[in-house]
Amino acid sequence: MSINLLIQKVKEKSNPTVVGLDPFIENFPQDILKKYPIPDAILAFNKDIIDAVADIVPAVKPQAAFYEQYGWQGFRALEETVKYAKSKGLYVILDGKRNDIGSTAEGYAKAYLTEDGMNADALTVNGYLGFDGIKPFLDTGRAIFVLAKTSNPSSGDVQNRRLDDGKTVYETVAELCAEWGAGSPCGGVAVPYNNVGIVVGATYPEQIAELREKLPRTFFLIPGYGAQGGKAEDIAKAFDKDGLGAIVNASRSILYAWKNTGGDYQDAARAEAIKMRDDITGKLEINP
Amino acid sequence: MSINLLIQKVKEKSNPTVVGLDPFIENFPQDILKKYPIPDAILAFNKDIIDAVADIVPAVKPQAAFYEQYGWQGFRALEETVKYAKSKGLYVILDGKRNDIGSTAEGYAKAYLTEDGMNADALTVNGYLGFDGIKPFLDTGRAIFVLAKTSNPSSGDVQNRRLDDGKTVYETVAELCAEWGAGSPCGGVAVPYNNVGIVVGATYPEQIAELREKLPRTFFLIPGYGAQGGKAEDIAKAFDKDGLGAIVNASRSILYAWKNTGGDYQDAARAEAIKMRDDITGKLEINP
Repeated sequence: MSINLLIQKVKEKSNPTVVGLDPFIENFPQDILKKYPIPDAILAFNKDIIDAVADIVPAVKPQAAFYEQYGWQGFRALEETVKYAKSKGLYVILDGKRNDIGSTAEGYAKAYLTEDGMNADALTVNGYLGFDGIKPFLDTGRAIFVLAKTSNPSSGDVQNRRLDDGKTVYETVAELCAEWGAGSPCGGVAVPYNNVGIVVGATYPEQIAELREKLPRTFFLIPGYGAQGGKAEDIAKAFDKDGLGAIVNASRSILYAWKNTGGDYQDAARAEAIKMRDDITGKLEINP
Repeated sequence: MSINLLIQKVKEKSNPTVVGLDPFIENFPQDILKKYPIPDAILAFNKDIIDAVADIVPAVKPQAAFYEQYGWQGFRALEETVKYAKSKGLYVILDGKRNDIGSTAEGYAKAYLTEDGMNADALTVNGYLGFDGIKPFLDTGRAIFVLAKTSNPSSGDVQNRRLDDGKTVYETVAELCAEWGAGSPCGGVAVPYNNVGIVVGATYPEQIAELREKLPRTFFLIPGYGAQGGKAEDIAKAFDKDGLGAIVNASRSILYAWKNTGGDYQDAARAEAIKMRDDITGKLEINP
């Protein structure tokens, strides 16, 4: 669905964070692995995590690769995960980083952003192919998050190159997203963010601040908090004066919190999700 | 498998072309649609096409989006298609344009380029994330084709931007691929192409010539022939003096040739695949 629905859910929960559903079965509790065969165990674990955090967080972000590696049964577990999360009122950002052109991009849009397909609310997309690779997703009326400055160490290999106009590649991609998004259904009305968001890693705080200043109508999806080293104070600059404009992801630190804390894995995940929420919102400068 | 296996199959068939398996059910023959429900019809049609061309072409390239849009059953049809094509001795390039980092990229590598997964021989990859997003695929010892200059009209939005060193973005990505590939298992030995190929659209002949001159050890995957307007004489410059170094894709023009010619769809696909082979090889300047 449009970015407006995400904003609404962020407001309802007073929480601009998203739980990444990245199944690493080696970190699953033994009782789940004993009870279910592998792809079923993934769905069972996801449902337990969703139940544990659904009243706290506005959104979840399943990472497609971790399901696809289990073949069609893994793909089915992903479909069921999306369905279950939506039934619990969560906004679902499918992290598939899909990209293609023309009828092929239409195929991906149908696969992930329509009721005939997986029916996620939003999809991560790689913008290297230009607008031909963006329009079919936009036409669904749902949100996308285009990779701008990713959180990994080598993201600069391509993204940090400087163009002859003085801008970097990531900056150029981010500005294109602002252009592409300006024409999207909720651009410019009521909520001032459009359907073309960008991905900016929590590991690059200067770039977060730089892009927020330049792109006031672009929603940010921010991975790299926690495990990858991104800190709440680094991320604070992604938000506007209403505490909106960005959503921060954490996956492993929440899902497998029980490995550090001991005890029940649902309780541990919930406690960690609350800790993350309070950490992030505690650093925001929100107008009263 | 490594790029060497592809080269070997190209030599065996004296044919540097690949048939794209892009199922558009609206173009399927009625008797297949009557006989099978949708995802099964896709597999049945693919098997018939594979049977019709397996002794002529070295490779097939299924486009993942067209399968994913049918959910887990579509994904299973894709798995079965890959398996069937390999059983017929074809090299399988999975066109998934996957991209991610670290353990997530490892997930995709496992999903598509290992025996535990779909077991394709090669995968198309988007290189926007830099080397972190390349290494996990390379570590499988199989080939990848990284998007450099794509065939679509808006590919210039990002790819044609000029850097402050005078190079374009696509040129920079292509040069990075040459660097990344230099360390791959078959780099530098016997056959002079490494496991990091690039995608360059047939619709951009000047760029094909430019990149071939600069990157003598990089194998090219060339979409955009036929339906998108790329011509054999434009593509000829992608090849070396042994007629190697590139493979040219056509999808719809072969799969649905029967819609133009009438008659049996297998016969029509075979005739069109032969016509394409002769068109491409007829323009090559090969040393005796």
